[in-house]
Amino acid sequence: MEIPTYDDMQAAHERIRDHVHRTPVLTSSYLDELTGANLFFKCENLQKAGAFKARGASNAVFGLSDEQAAKGVATHSSGNHGTCLSYAAGRRGIPCTVVMPRTAPQAKKDAVRGYGGRVVECEPSTSSREAVFAEVVAESGAEFVHPYNDPRVIAGQGTCSAELIEQVEGLDAVIAPIGGGGMVSGTCLTLSTAAPDVRIYAAEPAQADDAMRSFKAGHIIADDAPETIADGLKVPLKDLTWHFVSNHVTDIFTASEEEIVDAMKLIWKRMKIVMEPSSAVPLACILNNKDVFAGKRVGVIITGGNVDLDRLPWMTD
Amino acid sequence: MEIPTYDDMQAAHERIRDHVHRTPVLTSSYLDELTGANLFFKCENLQKAGAFKARGASNAVFGLSDEQAAKGVATHSSGNHGTCLSYAAGRRGIPCTVVMPRTAPQAKKDAVRGYGGRVVECEPSTSSREAVFAEVVAESGAEFVHPYNDPRVIAGQGTCSAELIEQVEGLDAVIAPIGGGGMVSGTCLTLSTAAPDVRIYAAEPAQADDAMRSFKAGHIIADDAPETIADGLKVPLKDLTWHFVSNHVTDIFTASEEEIVDAMKLIWKRMKIVMEPSSAVPLACILNNKDVFAGKRVGVIITGGNVDLDRLPWMTD
Repeated sequence: MEIPTYDDMQAAHERIRDHVHRTPVLTSSYLDELTGANLFFKCENLQKAGAFKARGASNAVFGLSDEQAAKGVATHSSGNHGTCLSYAAGRRGIPCTVVMPRTAPQAKKDAVRGYGGRVVECEPSTSSREAVFAEVVAESGAEFVHPYNDPRVIAGQGTCSAELIEQVEGLDAVIAPIGGGGMVSGTCLTLSTAAPDVRIYAAEPAQADDAMRSFKAGHIIADDAPETIADGLKVPLKDLTWHFVSNHVTDIFTASEEEIVDAMKLIWKRMKIVMEPSSAVPLACILNNKDVFAGKRVGVIITGGNVDLDRLPWMTD
Repeated sequence: MEIPTYDDMQAAHERIRDHVHRTPVLTSSYLDELTGANLFFKCENLQKAGAFKARGASNAVFGLSDEQAAKGVATHSSGNHGTCLSYAAGRRGIPCTVVMPRTAPQAKKDAVRGYGGRVVECEPSTSSREAVFAEVVAESGAEFVHPYNDPRVIAGQGTCSAELIEQVEGLDAVIAPIGGGGMVSGTCLTLSTAAPDVRIYAAEPAQADDAMRSFKAGHIIADDAPETIADGLKVPLKDLTWHFVSNHVTDIFTASEEEIVDAMKLIWKRMKIVMEPSSAVPLACILNNKDVFAGKRVGVIITGGNVDLDRLPWMTD
């Protein structure tokens, strides 16, 4: 296990500077009043390819030697990582293959292809995914870039909070959604060196609360296929992300499906931004734990904005 | 007719600085590729109270003497101006009355009340509105702040492009939606002095194209109750806004209802921001006139973000 360092994060920041946005930080008097906190929303939904994962993916892609790069990159992901890896590979002009269940939404496949990546379909099972992925790598020699359990990816995600603490002075805490833990790990990586007094909280759907249970138990607990509307947050922690979470996170909070949808709609309505259900989990958790955040200056990571506008959660209300 | 000056705009900028956001400018590689232009979106949907009208309203409210202010402000508007005037009055702690047809959407009434303003209902006719409004003013002595044909309001709106030219260097053009012409007039006021080489274009729904026809005819043409999904753009030019439009606008373009909805959805999808149909008219017009904008650096004013999330135009598709 190669644990990325603060220097790796700084190198990542230099490396990806021309390929990602320095995303804005937005505030809302209304949400401040509602929560009793001062919230600073770091808007990675406005990031290239619509998610913070453009940071880690760009760091992995642009850190490859020319020789490695020529063989391309590959991953398995039906979420933002696949899209963002395709984006980064497209910027470098190298091949990218994303293995995805054939049942994945058409929009996700189109997004990968839109940036020039290739989609290879597998059956919707872990065994099929692993077999197909092994074949892709064997055939192409492509470099595997894991969605989160990869030091290059974590170092890349860490650039988000490096910007945040430049943009907002005197933060007391940062809260981010947790699925596999890539963003939270990057946040820990950066803040534990650059701003060690800032508390780091993670926010998780109650219906996929494996990170919270892992945190309480002191070891990784992985659930089998949890179901939540926050579809970016279904995956379990892995050794690298567990390292950061177990060492640097102050607490992990959860929110119900209804609370997540309510928080999502509230952010759309009051902040006028399009963001994913996963990105609403932190606000939902702040509302569930007002006493923890009241009077504090809190950075809130809005992780992504890739939603299907024709199937918004409140459309079925 | 008192025509506001560049100095008035600068004074407005100082006056409202603490009450409005300096809104971010966003870009989209995808939309640049699609249009062949370099587009810089000035996001007034992220403005206080969700619209650029917070600028003009704040300038009017904070420019009042204490004596005038004590009697409050009043307007008639079922759109963003009513909400924004209520916002500004609330910031100063003075009364605000908004006369609105009883048939106006509940959400609009709630928005005015949400900032502490009072809603007085009239019948949905010009005669009723005028009678009720006259009564409100007679009774309270409130200062009338017209939604756009008011030098204080135009000077306030002009602060938007003052920021834009600080944020983006070397603009060739700016395009903004046109209804009554408040934003376009403010843009003309600022740019004609600060950046006279920047061309100013206005964008209008084809179904409410009175400004375009006025522009071609050389005099104000006012339509009776045009119908368009871009509901902020139904009102006609008045003498002050006509002054600016007729003197400083290069051209006025139009877009169909379908083009407006398509452009709106495209911006939501690619830029991850919530904005109104009115705000999509400029992009729709750029897509209709690619030759005019190709290769140019173009500021695009996203005027507001107050939409009913339960009734999005593509929900009925």
